Amino acid sequence: MKILVSNDDGIGSVGINLLVEELRKVGDVVVIAPATEQSAAGHSITMKNPLRVKEHFVDNKFFGYAINGTPADCVKIGIKNILEEKPDLVISGINNGSNAAINVIYSGTVSAAREAAIMDVPAMAISVDSHTPKHYEYAAKLAKKLAKFICEKKLRTGTLLNVNVPDLPEEEIAGISVTRQGETRWDDFYEERIDPYGEKYYWLTGKMDYQDIENDRDVIALKNGYVSITPVHFDLTDFTMLETMKNWELDSIK
Amino acid sequence: MKILVSNDDGIGSVGINLLVEELRKVGDVVVIAPATEQSAAGHSITMKNPLRVKEHFVDNKFFGYAINGTPADCVKIGIKNILEEKPDLVISGINNGSNAAINVIYSGTVSAAREAAIMDVPAMAISVDSHTPKHYEYAAKLAKKLAKFICEKKLRTGTLLNVNVPDLPEEEIAGISVTRQGETRWDDFYEERIDPYGEKYYWLTGKMDYQDIENDRDVIALKNGYVSITPVHFDLTDFTMLETMKNWELDSIK
Repeated sequence: MKILVSNDDGIGSVGINLLVEELRKVGDVVVIAPATEQSAAGHSITMKNPLRVKEHFVDNKFFGYAINGTPADCVKIGIKNILEEKPDLVISGINNGSNAAINVIYSGTVSAAREAAIMDVPAMAISVDSHTPKHYEYAAKLAKKLAKFICEKKLRTGTLLNVNVPDLPEEEIAGISVTRQGETRWDDFYEERIDPYGEKYYWLTGKMDYQDIENDRDVIALKNGYVSITPVHFDLTDFTMLETMKNWELDSIK
Repeated sequence: MKILVSNDDGIGSVGINLLVEELRKVGDVVVIAPATEQSAAGHSITMKNPLRVKEHFVDNKFFGYAINGTPADCVKIGIKNILEEKPDLVISGINNGSNAAINVIYSGTVSAAREAAIMDVPAMAISVDSHTPKHYEYAAKLAKKLAKFICEKKLRTGTLLNVNVPDLPEEEIAGISVTRQGETRWDDFYEERIDPYGEKYYWLTGKMDYQDIENDRDVIALKNGYVSITPVHFDLTDFTMLETMKNWELDSIK
């Protein structure tokens, strides 16, 4: 099994290192990840600047390729230029912090997996529900098992799995829940501050404002101690609204 | 009608200027747009750096606020900190180049409108199907008419309209078509080049690889000379795959 691994926390992060260590037990792993942290990069790609590919070493041993771009760039240039053939699977993570509900939109971790799905490569994003995880190990082991599982079960073309893992020791994980994306959003605001030169600047901060209650939502599964797995695609059409709009007399305003 | 206008080509672009000129005929317009071009910014937001808000003048007249961030940042800080009350509508554009099919994922223009939808504000993204448009005028007039139309018809909370306009004179526009997001993707690749210091760099380039044939797809409507309007939301759950996965025995790998 050939696995391309990327992330959004950067190639030097703990999460990607533990993930790679575990995945190397079951497959040929190539790491192609951002040189620097790219949290909340969304699905941005680099078009107006050139990309560089640098070999990255850990303890004088080649670890992977560091790219001066976004998570989606890494997967795109990885599959197009670095790898000789398409990988069997792309895994993005392990991310510090969950990528559930509205965070699926902002997430660089998910976008790396989504770029793979766009290129018809099975993919999975994996995140731990803490910004300072204590229990990466379980997530890494689960990623390894899921890698084999996905390759057997087959995903739909264009679909990736968005996996979120509670930051709990293995024995406290309640189970694995197949979920849909929640509607929880951020209750966020910009702190206004003054820089040393007397000029104003704004810093985004806030917390999740839980709006979900149903057990089949990603954020609720996590809260209840379950691993949440959501199948995610990239057709953003709102089909309910589409039906309504068919009755709008839009030609009247042409 | 209070309208917040943003874009991804930057506050100095021709498209936003023509849009604002037209919208000022029907509403109070506040412009809050990126200081510099943010094409393909996707739905990235700025969390690890501070944002600055600068007044932007055209011919010594105040035009709007320039933000050192992404399109989504502009809408977020605009609604949270700059405007005193929520606008009735957010319009993002007029973009140079269509945002149809897979480009909906990469688009900064769409993400500005999506950020508004996340904040429960009706929104629309508008793009012209050319990187060097000759016919902005019709798109600007259509945006003005649609602004009133949307406020009467009401959008579903969380849904935005993604409007793409052929680069044609008004009399050659075939009509307005309600569409779904197409499946057309990029046939793209990275050109390998050598910089003046002898080091390799990679530049993304390519063209759209049309995979759609049906008239109800955004890219096909555009090709046929129709304005394409797609309702877009941000629930990325793949419900078809979700049903399949309910039969996966995932607890066996817990």
